[in-house]
Amino acid sequence: MNPPTRLVEVRQRVLKHNDVVAHELRRRFQEAGVMVVSLVSSPGAGKTAFLEKILGMLRSQYRVAAIVGDLATDNDARRLARAQVPTRQIVTGAVCHLEAQMVAGALDGWSLAELDFLFIENVGNLVCPASYDLGEALRLVLLSVTEGEDKPLKYPTIFNTADIALVTKIDLAAAVDFDRPAALRNIQAVRPGMPIFEVSAKTGAGLSYWLEDLHNRKSNGRRQQDDLGQ
Amino acid sequence: MNPPTRLVEVRQRVLKHNDVVAHELRRRFQEAGVMVVSLVSSPGAGKTAFLEKILGMLRSQYRVAAIVGDLATDNDARRLARAQVPTRQIVTGAVCHLEAQMVAGALDGWSLAELDFLFIENVGNLVCPASYDLGEALRLVLLSVTEGEDKPLKYPTIFNTADIALVTKIDLAAAVDFDRPAALRNIQAVRPGMPIFEVSAKTGAGLSYWLEDLHNRKSNGRRQQDDLGQ
Repeated sequence: MNPPTRLVEVRQRVLKHNDVVAHELRRRFQEAGVMVVSLVSSPGAGKTAFLEKILGMLRSQYRVAAIVGDLATDNDARRLARAQVPTRQIVTGAVCHLEAQMVAGALDGWSLAELDFLFIENVGNLVCPASYDLGEALRLVLLSVTEGEDKPLKYPTIFNTADIALVTKIDLAAAVDFDRPAALRNIQAVRPGMPIFEVSAKTGAGLSYWLEDLHNRKSNGRRQQDDLGQ
Repeated sequence: MNPPTRLVEVRQRVLKHNDVVAHELRRRFQEAGVMVVSLVSSPGAGKTAFLEKILGMLRSQYRVAAIVGDLATDNDARRLARAQVPTRQIVTGAVCHLEAQMVAGALDGWSLAELDFLFIENVGNLVCPASYDLGEALRLVLLSVTEGEDKPLKYPTIFNTADIALVTKIDLAAAVDFDRPAALRNIQAVRPGMPIFEVSAKTGAGLSYWLEDLHNRKSNGRRQQDDLGQ
């Protein structure tokens, strides 16, 4: 018996089960009119810092909430709570990604219809989260300038499953000799036409451009729903 | 049927199989007198940059070689080849870690007895590599100052399975407001007594201290083998 082959088979069954739950989640989110945005990246690319800043900027205009996943600790949920929006932590234990079922569990008791945006911060990992649909409408992949410009080529799947790339920590670009053309070229090589936003949660640079894009997507989504008579 | 439960069962079988292969690898490495050092970290923490520098510094005194793992691309092997030591790339596809069997395969045709040190750079990932023994004598976990000081608390398993922590990119410490006491405290909280070296591959800071430690470990290992009459 070949253990890896059996692992692949069982894994496919898990993924199929995840897809069913994610499909149902997506239907619930659409029905409730909440736009769900997930964030994936390697550990330390700045997901929580970005989210903390964005939540603070959105909450005057929208009703927002966040779910954060981590193997251990609720550090991120405590950080996000500073933005004064409802936040829940999923502790995954030894699991290197969030699954749709974990998200469904974390929603318990929340009225989705009372939210405009729900952000889901995945576990810091450039491999495992790629395979798991969480029912989100939009998936952001973050790449910090300190990580190296070849990450898209080395982790193509996660860039392929994402809708938007955020180049983060651009305030450090000069200090780390960030090769911007190479980074942008590598993202486009893996996912041609992918929208890219360059941001810094520390200085606030670029955040308003991304928020404008998010706002437009939300409005378009609403128009499409109206057109469909929903 | 509960797919996650079956996944855990099959995964345990894979891990058991890995342990058998790793055990055999460790025996081969010891017999050949080669010291095997593996590196784990999140993507972009600086494993390849560190290794490139270290290989260049070691090769005048020792016979060294390297194996690098990645999901896609042989970028790292090509970077390490610049250090002019034998290098091999393992492309893991969708697999988020190296396994002992992959390492065994990559050794084909190499005469281990002609090596003093073999370095194995794992896939950039703070979760999956923790569970897979590669037969190494020494496992280094790298944490860059740009990643956030709480990584040891969030990914305790990988820090627990490592022997030495390297805090990397210390040339950027001021630029990112690195909280050094917090980082060191968090490493010690997860793995009390763990040796910590603070280094910069860019400036070379701290590298000689780590090399001295490596040199001493190599000498002690040789003495122990002599004592055992091997």
